[in-house]
Amino acid sequence: MNTTEIKALTFDIFGTVVDWYGTIVSEGQSWGAAKGIAIDWGQFALDWRAGYEPAMARVRRGELPWLMIDQLHRLILDELLVQYTITGLNETEKDHWNRVWHRLTPWPDAVAGLQRLKTGYIIATLSNGNVALLTNMAKQGGLPWDCILSAELFHHYKPDPEVYQGAANLLGLPPNQVLMVAAHQGDLRAAQAAGMRTAFVPRPLEYGPTQRPDPTVDPSFDLVATDFADLAEKLGV
Amino acid sequence: MNTTEIKALTFDIFGTVVDWYGTIVSEGQSWGAAKGIAIDWGQFALDWRAGYEPAMARVRRGELPWLMIDQLHRLILDELLVQYTITGLNETEKDHWNRVWHRLTPWPDAVAGLQRLKTGYIIATLSNGNVALLTNMAKQGGLPWDCILSAELFHHYKPDPEVYQGAANLLGLPPNQVLMVAAHQGDLRAAQAAGMRTAFVPRPLEYGPTQRPDPTVDPSFDLVATDFADLAEKLGV
Repeated sequence: MNTTEIKALTFDIFGTVVDWYGTIVSEGQSWGAAKGIAIDWGQFALDWRAGYEPAMARVRRGELPWLMIDQLHRLILDELLVQYTITGLNETEKDHWNRVWHRLTPWPDAVAGLQRLKTGYIIATLSNGNVALLTNMAKQGGLPWDCILSAELFHHYKPDPEVYQGAANLLGLPPNQVLMVAAHQGDLRAAQAAGMRTAFVPRPLEYGPTQRPDPTVDPSFDLVATDFADLAEKLGV
Repeated sequence: MNTTEIKALTFDIFGTVVDWYGTIVSEGQSWGAAKGIAIDWGQFALDWRAGYEPAMARVRRGELPWLMIDQLHRLILDELLVQYTITGLNETEKDHWNRVWHRLTPWPDAVAGLQRLKTGYIIATLSNGNVALLTNMAKQGGLPWDCILSAELFHHYKPDPEVYQGAANLLGLPPNQVLMVAAHQGDLRAAQAAGMRTAFVPRPLEYGPTQRPDPTVDPSFDLVATDFADLAEKLGV
């Protein structure tokens, strides 16, 4: 790929930049130990995440009004608390738990890689997470975004084309000057359909140590990188 | 003011964080010298800025559809080029000149003050400038925003209440946990009416060395600070 035309990089967040599985397991174990709750936190994390796509799909189909991810996460959490027989939480505790998604830990290469990428490009989030979630996460994790872009700004969830087109519009760039970076091939194919360039950064541990995403890579992506340092290398910064 | 409830600071930009007058005069003089154009660049800067409120007012009243500031600046620039008899510019040159608003220089205390404020608070823009303008300006000037918020996200210009309410909503905070920082008292009064807290930071040189804004300060603001270092001091960071 000729990278000279790229002006901005937009990043998927959950799984691409931050480790939702590891953070939820780690917080769950500490919190469960303090509260005497012994469950399989790995499965709990997977179940929470598994509820996310169907919940967004209901919004995308118009069965639910626009709800931000904080609200969708909470709907799923309330069901999981019943399913795992976790009782006696007050509203403050539930809200704190729900906001674990604001506190997700960056992958080890993410902060240094983004700092390096930022020297040559505008770097922005492009996530289904809401603006407050992404802002709080960046603050806590030291993610040096130039700009927070979110599905919330368009009232459409990825992979709806409005999200990718809307991001390029807000950045004041034609889509082919924006490189979408993600660990999820469906996200990249939708970005491609909207005219963006694409970089695939697989995160084999996204779903924890026992599940592995399909390693087959769509050959149509512009770049494939092992992590953000490798991405910076391939983009020449 | 009890500052413990404040979680985020939102900043007006043109005049409050960056020096539009000084930057336009400086770029105009260099560019004019190279092109053989000798005009009063201070007056040119004042005229460009003076066209801004009436142009936004036409959008606010619905006489114009939503146009972002880049487009409003260009409408005004095209009139000024006629008025000042500046001819022979091609489209690239006009566009470059129009984007001087993306390159405005921060006031001397701004970057260090924001870095300090960022240690204790979420710091965000809340400007009538569009997202691309604010992102490019931050990148060039080293302004360390946590989040870029703009009138463009709401299709309303300040002082419409939708802008202030929308900003608090996107930050996930009640308005009384957000402190609006501006050198313009009308902006602060509108923020106050939307439930925000307010900090006035006068910028006596905003309109250049010969004009001085009215020094009378509305006593209803929560804080008055001489610059961003003083603001940080008063907010205890």
